[in-house]
Amino acid sequence: MSTEVGTDLPAAPAVPAVPAAPAGRRGGGEAAVTEAFAVALPVGRWSTDPAIIDAHRLDRSGWIPPGRPLGVAFAREVADVQSVLRVASARGVPVIVRGAGTGLAGGAAAGAGTVVLDLTGMNRIRELSVADAVAVVEPGVITADLDAAARQVGLSYPPDPASASISTIGGNIATNAGGLRCAKYGVTRESVLGLEVVLADGEVITTGRRTVKGVAGYDLTGLLVGSEGTLGVVVGATVRLRPLPRATVTLAGYFDTALAAVDAVTALTAAGIVPAIAELLDERTVRAVDAATGSTLATHGAVFLLVQTDGAGATAEADEAQAILAARARAVHRSTDDATAEPLLAARRAALPSLERLGRPLIEDIAVPRSQLATAIARVTDIAAATGVDIYTLAHAADGNLHPIIVVDPASPELPPAAWHAAEQIFELALELGGTITGEHGIGILKRRWLATELGSHSHDLQRRLRAAFDPTGILNPGRGL
Amino acid sequence: MSTEVGTDLPAAPAVPAVPAAPAGRRGGGEAAVTEAFAVALPVGRWSTDPAIIDAHRLDRSGWIPPGRPLGVAFAREVADVQSVLRVASARGVPVIVRGAGTGLAGGAAAGAGTVVLDLTGMNRIRELSVADAVAVVEPGVITADLDAAARQVGLSYPPDPASASISTIGGNIATNAGGLRCAKYGVTRESVLGLEVVLADGEVITTGRRTVKGVAGYDLTGLLVGSEGTLGVVVGATVRLRPLPRATVTLAGYFDTALAAVDAVTALTAAGIVPAIAELLDERTVRAVDAATGSTLATHGAVFLLVQTDGAGATAEADEAQAILAARARAVHRSTDDATAEPLLAARRAALPSLERLGRPLIEDIAVPRSQLATAIARVTDIAAATGVDIYTLAHAADGNLHPIIVVDPASPELPPAAWHAAEQIFELALELGGTITGEHGIGILKRRWLATELGSHSHDLQRRLRAAFDPTGILNPGRGL
Repeated sequence: MSTEVGTDLPAAPAVPAVPAAPAGRRGGGEAAVTEAFAVALPVGRWSTDPAIIDAHRLDRSGWIPPGRPLGVAFAREVADVQSVLRVASARGVPVIVRGAGTGLAGGAAAGAGTVVLDLTGMNRIRELSVADAVAVVEPGVITADLDAAARQVGLSYPPDPASASISTIGGNIATNAGGLRCAKYGVTRESVLGLEVVLADGEVITTGRRTVKGVAGYDLTGLLVGSEGTLGVVVGATVRLRPLPRATVTLAGYFDTALAAVDAVTALTAAGIVPAIAELLDERTVRAVDAATGSTLATHGAVFLLVQTDGAGATAEADEAQAILAARARAVHRSTDDATAEPLLAARRAALPSLERLGRPLIEDIAVPRSQLATAIARVTDIAAATGVDIYTLAHAADGNLHPIIVVDPASPELPPAAWHAAEQIFELALELGGTITGEHGIGILKRRWLATELGSHSHDLQRRLRAAFDPTGILNPGRGL
Repeated sequence: MSTEVGTDLPAAPAVPAVPAAPAGRRGGGEAAVTEAFAVALPVGRWSTDPAIIDAHRLDRSGWIPPGRPLGVAFAREVADVQSVLRVASARGVPVIVRGAGTGLAGGAAAGAGTVVLDLTGMNRIRELSVADAVAVVEPGVITADLDAAARQVGLSYPPDPASASISTIGGNIATNAGGLRCAKYGVTRESVLGLEVVLADGEVITTGRRTVKGVAGYDLTGLLVGSEGTLGVVVGATVRLRPLPRATVTLAGYFDTALAAVDAVTALTAAGIVPAIAELLDERTVRAVDAATGSTLATHGAVFLLVQTDGAGATAEADEAQAILAARARAVHRSTDDATAEPLLAARRAALPSLERLGRPLIEDIAVPRSQLATAIARVTDIAAATGVDIYTLAHAADGNLHPIIVVDPASPELPPAAWHAAEQIFELALELGGTITGEHGIGILKRRWLATELGSHSHDLQRRLRAAFDPTGILNPGRGL
């Protein structure tokens, strides 16, 4: 559950409280602790300035933990991260790791007694190898910058969370970020071959490899991806690049109902078509986008479905997809050039900003088995009706990932109970349909209450033991993730 | 390192000895231990018959551990696995988990004091959902049977280790098996969405999910895949199915040298073509296949490269690939039907059996970054020359995975030191080139000595702590994997 940046969402009763850690549990008073970090880091890489702290303590969840962190460490190199974690381990100080702060689940929101470790200064693309189709990057590289660099040499970095132009690859790795192209190209996990990681005790390990295949030892790379900074701090990543698709065809389908659009996506996949993108905006969202941007989507049809095919078979797949859409849609428009495709993609990207104009959005992020997508959308509509809250639904339709966005009155200082109640029903719905409470945004702080229900207590306990094996003193993002 | 089934390869000095566990460390004598298993399991699911034990105690590595296991448990349902692990945990009895016994690294070779847990009786496809494009299977399902069932409904299960017709999905998961189609479709890991696992204490957990996306908690699914039975016993798997490719085009390229064939593969990938298959047989292997099968590959060219493109763009990609191959090859043949493609695939599949006619094969399994493939092949030739052993090289060329196969005189009761020396140099070569000692076969028993070198001691120690978090009493495949 998440709201956008800048809101001052107070803790709601449904969210478990995270105890504020006392400054320096084992290391003396606050002054001694901050002095230890200042001494351990090169000049200019540690700040206790309240304005600087305030600028680096929140993410886009809207969650504001009580109290102010002790300081911010600005890492520029691996040794800085080692220094921070060594001091933190020795003194028992919780470290909240952050990239660009675009997370939607509160994972980077830092409160009293913590230290913020900012990795945005580690933003070099260390290597870009065309021959091996890999890049080696530091965690602070902006994801879209990596893709742009790859495109200059005929390759691409496919994972594209909607935040790609502002989020970092390190944050994407921490949350195993998804995005629009997952059905065809997988989530971040499928593009990460190996990691360089500083463990809680300050030691550096490398995981994985530069090769596509390799089975020596356990898959620590996969375990670290999506672990929300709780197992170690990623200071380098070897990522897989893919050939830049030769051709891309974009189809805009306009439907009378969301169910008709879902039926079209079902028919696409039943036909063996693997779209690179299949984005659905429901009727309310379409109207909001039109109102905000001046677009005229609704004049073609109530519900918008954006489909892209790409690669050597793009045209053939698009021909077939167009026929499938046309049989169910009010209208289908086809684009094979950037000039006409870009406004369609822009409409999808405008969805969230358009909703922000209407109120304070809480972005849910459930995923359900593909066959349950229509049911999920219909049931979300029922939940909105029963609770009386406004819910707008976007979906990565080809992989069953829905974003029901609850929009509440921004004038209300606290989230209304009805909004929390709707969110809880959405989580229960996801689990009932065999899905998950989070497809791509992560648990962070805001979904911890529901995690054990999804995992089961045995798995949850086991995962906590794993966490302790990595971080026995519990300094890494305590209260986040598990 | 591995030899084929039926050889009686003795322990070589380079392989670390695995201590034979005393029967029932904490549980009384051998008779009491075997009685405990007999009582815990339904009638007919436990055997101490020496002939039955001998038929279920080896894999295809050729490794024969000293002594005979205490008995074999034949699991038919989840409860049987729970019973075995509960008794084993209570009495401290090592459990060696086996599927079809086709592993090449000694992971399923069981010695004195152990109990064999055979999962081949759990071989039902519980569900095959076209709508969700998933199958839910038990671990004893033969991999090719799963693919065949999927194909009947227009889907496929892409991972295809060369053993697919005889190996089980459980074994494939335990080793994170690769195969021919990995460059395009990924290894087993990329096709496993969720697992049902019995932990060492007999508790059952489920990991992952039925959805393509999901980030609730750590990726235990990925951690378990490739863990060689050391973290838990997989009793069920939800696997992802893919659309059956519409078209497949097969190209057979015949080259004067392996380097020319590698250059062609490099040019393919540089052109953005993602072949489904790119299999290389070196000159010695081509001659062995011709001699064994009566094929005439060598009349077209010394080195054989089999390339397949598939999907909606198969023809367009094949057109381009054919031109790239033709510019470097002595001859290129094209096939668009099964009748003419099958003999080409059969030639690839015949490679190992052809080498078995010549002696005792030790199958190495290194992977190197794609740019290092040509260097790796050349250096393996140098190693053969320097050590005087016969080495035949196959390669999954598009993902840098080589199988240099050392063939030794079968009359010799022990592996000659030169063969061990060559194997060691091949491992060192892989690491020197930035690769791995095992691309897809696993560590098992036979590569444990080199594992810490590849992982580094910190990562190795961490992985052992993880293992202990799953299996604190160390009953699961002790001495295997890590």
